[in-house]
Amino acid sequence: MQLLDGKAIAAQMKQEIAQEVKQLIAQGGRAPHLAAILVGNDGGSETYVASKVKTCHEVGFESSLFRYDNSITEQAILDKVAALNNDPAVDGFIVQLPLPKHISEQKVIEAIDYRKDVDGFHPINVGRMAIGLPCFVSATPAGIVELLKRYNIETQGKHCVVLGRSNIVGKPMAMLMAQKAYPGDCTVTVCHSRSKNLKEMCLSADIIIAALGVPEFLTADMVKQGAVIVDVGTTRVPSTTTKSGFKLTGDVKFDEVAPKCSYISPVPGGVGPMTIISLMRNTLLAGQKAIYKD
Amino acid sequence: MQLLDGKAIAAQMKQEIAQEVKQLIAQGGRAPHLAAILVGNDGGSETYVASKVKTCHEVGFESSLFRYDNSITEQAILDKVAALNNDPAVDGFIVQLPLPKHISEQKVIEAIDYRKDVDGFHPINVGRMAIGLPCFVSATPAGIVELLKRYNIETQGKHCVVLGRSNIVGKPMAMLMAQKAYPGDCTVTVCHSRSKNLKEMCLSADIIIAALGVPEFLTADMVKQGAVIVDVGTTRVPSTTTKSGFKLTGDVKFDEVAPKCSYISPVPGGVGPMTIISLMRNTLLAGQKAIYKD
Repeated sequence: MQLLDGKAIAAQMKQEIAQEVKQLIAQGGRAPHLAAILVGNDGGSETYVASKVKTCHEVGFESSLFRYDNSITEQAILDKVAALNNDPAVDGFIVQLPLPKHISEQKVIEAIDYRKDVDGFHPINVGRMAIGLPCFVSATPAGIVELLKRYNIETQGKHCVVLGRSNIVGKPMAMLMAQKAYPGDCTVTVCHSRSKNLKEMCLSADIIIAALGVPEFLTADMVKQGAVIVDVGTTRVPSTTTKSGFKLTGDVKFDEVAPKCSYISPVPGGVGPMTIISLMRNTLLAGQKAIYKD
Repeated sequence: MQLLDGKAIAAQMKQEIAQEVKQLIAQGGRAPHLAAILVGNDGGSETYVASKVKTCHEVGFESSLFRYDNSITEQAILDKVAALNNDPAVDGFIVQLPLPKHISEQKVIEAIDYRKDVDGFHPINVGRMAIGLPCFVSATPAGIVELLKRYNIETQGKHCVVLGRSNIVGKPMAMLMAQKAYPGDCTVTVCHSRSKNLKEMCLSADIIIAALGVPEFLTADMVKQGAVIVDVGTTRVPSTTTKSGFKLTGDVKFDEVAPKCSYISPVPGGVGPMTIISLMRNTLLAGQKAIYKD
């Protein structure tokens, strides 16, 4: 069994991106600039955004963080989105989800200029990904694809089971793994809460992407010998052994599943770091105007 | 075995749409107006467009057909698209594919105002479908979903195998069958030319959507007793027994597969008529501004 060490790969990508930023600047350009909008005080959101800002700093990006109270109106957020759309100094920006209930997340996402939508959530980016056109692929799926690529995981003709059908992980992962590309070209099965034959499907899988958000859902009896397992779960489970009072727990019962795998990604240190670095990569692409010219 | 009689269902939908058009007009509105751009003299395209124009007439729509020689420039097509985008008398329009090689189909599709994109090929409509938002679903997948619905085919928790990963059938069908809806909520597997375990997958399927474009690909030994089969294939195979010199042939070896099925759609008379009527339904929705308000 070999670890899909997202932390190590992300560290490597961090250096690559930092190098490209230096090059951009040496050629008379400026550092890519990522802005983030954060509403309220959700603990998870705070941690994620802080981590994104920190990584921006490490790769040499500019970053801006706009924080708002939970009471902010939808219109005020839409106004801020419009301002960032029109700010030529900002290459890409994200609105950290979830938003308070009185603000429509979908409306906010659709208000973002798709050319600055480095989270890849705008329908234009989702649609372009589905069709196979250049676009911002959302960070978690992009990170998983990159992780498979860096470990030269064979994918063509393999059976890939995606557990979960969320808009931000399950659906795009299924599309990416089925497309004519590397990584890709898999026979792809999407399973979810309504699937009756989930265990048999998993047992026939060469690759499993677990993104149900159910801690330790995938057990050893569901996994074929030699399978590749990518664990996307990051549920905060209460814990008395950590300072924070919780423990990030994946969708895979790691200790019993790992011995059966050829490759497996841990939680933490697997998909998480790949997600953040993929957001950086999208921001670099935005700064370089590598996907959308104007 | 029961036929999924697309011809009969389409005839029924034709009457329903005609009724809605009468109502629109009675309420002081006007008939929906579908325009079509046809380039060159491809036999299949001629037939499809003629059939669409005829159906427009039958349901009481206005229709316009703009025909161009194969030598037309890309810019001239883009200009025509822009004119139709801006014509308030046109509710929806299609550009019949394929286009001559010197014209970028993708560029033309993206030039269409997504609010008039009744073919559902624009990235915005594809993306909105993937996310589960109101949109124009392209006609073939929309027709298949409607066919399953009209026959009350049970889908929740079933295993649906989609053969093919084209942008206009395989990919959207997979997304629709996996989404939390009826029809939908299936465990969905996408198989394609690179799939190694295609036969086993088909044998485990409760529902098979065959959209590979390979005549008579699906044989009896690949089908489980009681399966539901939807045949999307429409390959023109040369024939000495028809006046036209060819015969529309599906992806399913109908004679041997049909006895094993609970339901099966024939070719012709299955998905074909459902595709055309679904285009009409999208045009009606465009005329009613039922999906996009302005």
